[in-house]
Amino acid sequence: MEKNQSLHAFIKEELFDRIKTNKYKKGDQIPTELELCKDFNVSRTTVRTALNQLTLEGYLIRKQGKGTYVADPKLKQTLSHTIKRYGDQVAVQGKKAKIKLVALTVVPADEHLAESLQVEIDAPIQRIERVRQANGDPTQYEVAYIPWNIAPGITQEHAETSLYASFQEDFNIQVAKTIENIEITLVDQRISNHLKCEEGLPCFYIETVTKDDKGRRIEFSRAYFRGDKTNFLIERNYLTEE
Amino acid sequence: MEKNQSLHAFIKEELFDRIKTNKYKKGDQIPTELELCKDFNVSRTTVRTALNQLTLEGYLIRKQGKGTYVADPKLKQTLSHTIKRYGDQVAVQGKKAKIKLVALTVVPADEHLAESLQVEIDAPIQRIERVRQANGDPTQYEVAYIPWNIAPGITQEHAETSLYASFQEDFNIQVAKTIENIEITLVDQRISNHLKCEEGLPCFYIETVTKDDKGRRIEFSRAYFRGDKTNFLIERNYLTEE
Repeated sequence: MEKNQSLHAFIKEELFDRIKTNKYKKGDQIPTELELCKDFNVSRTTVRTALNQLTLEGYLIRKQGKGTYVADPKLKQTLSHTIKRYGDQVAVQGKKAKIKLVALTVVPADEHLAESLQVEIDAPIQRIERVRQANGDPTQYEVAYIPWNIAPGITQEHAETSLYASFQEDFNIQVAKTIENIEITLVDQRISNHLKCEEGLPCFYIETVTKDDKGRRIEFSRAYFRGDKTNFLIERNYLTEE
Repeated sequence: MEKNQSLHAFIKEELFDRIKTNKYKKGDQIPTELELCKDFNVSRTTVRTALNQLTLEGYLIRKQGKGTYVADPKLKQTLSHTIKRYGDQVAVQGKKAKIKLVALTVVPADEHLAESLQVEIDAPIQRIERVRQANGDPTQYEVAYIPWNIAPGITQEHAETSLYASFQEDFNIQVAKTIENIEITLVDQRISNHLKCEEGLPCFYIETVTKDDKGRRIEFSRAYFRGDKTNFLIERNYLTEE
């Protein structure tokens, strides 16, 4: 055990390793608290702290009166060079993807939107509020803002398939660049309703500005991904670029 | 106010907007709880909930007996195509960067390392434990594993400047590709000591595998970034690639 490392941190790491190396497999019930106490020769409080943290982080699921199970792996999403449709990314993981429109309205640009989208204050902006699901579980809540002038009359069908595909196919817009800012935030009550999780759960918060090939800002969005369910993959190549 | 949105969530969003649009500037004291209650015509509990969440998320700092202040902007780090040294990324934000070596040892590869680095079990692996600081504040805690055979005899100087630069300059290795997995985790006691934060703080957890131009795995690392202090920027270009 490393210097300075507390006992529960050590046990958490050991259990985490067993999950990562498939000693404990997805869906498996893991040993009981008492068995783990005996195995590690530590107190029940210590074991429970380790189990609670792994549960909060999304690696274990505790079922009331039944025991502790290994959770489904987090949903992997790629933040790389290609635009892959959400559905395609989810499908390769054996899950069924769905995009659900919550609301589609037109709002006047406030100061922040005017700046983000480089439009006049009060310009008409389409506000598209959506939830993405994998196998029926919400994974992402998102509000996208698209200036009316850029793509007038976005429909529910556009919103529930792929906005990027619609830009190209129905509005003759070539998506050229995205600039994403990723932070951690805590889910508030409204968003927790959409993501079906506890208020205060840590989540990824991504703000995206999308530009087309003429340099116009075509979309600004705010997206929230459940922290206990999401894994982002970033691949970077160094030799061939810049 | 939107349907379903709780009062404190509304106030949180309003205050967040004032910070983002610089109505409340970095370092400024914001109005007192009582003033905000009056402004928004809500209870003190509601205001306090909103302020607490913004504090946890790193946007506000509450000083005992003094009031609430706008925090420094989160440290922006780029996850794009170029390898920029940590020091260079931090310097453009007007902060002084430092990499501090915590420990440099050689360990035998366990099952997980053997798989991640594609070496034999018990092969000698250099373990490099470091903390990165911006203006003296820890921003990142990282443990890197590099097979002895790939770059034998890594020194404290290599570790405290740039490993990637050392690969190239001293070991004749061409870094070609990184594969990063990003998740949210909660800081345990050991890591909270290094990051000088509370245990349980949500943080970015990044696992990276680095390959060279011959396809060899040259490094595996685990890094933890304080969630209340970190903002990742990802730029993606769609037209010129793939």
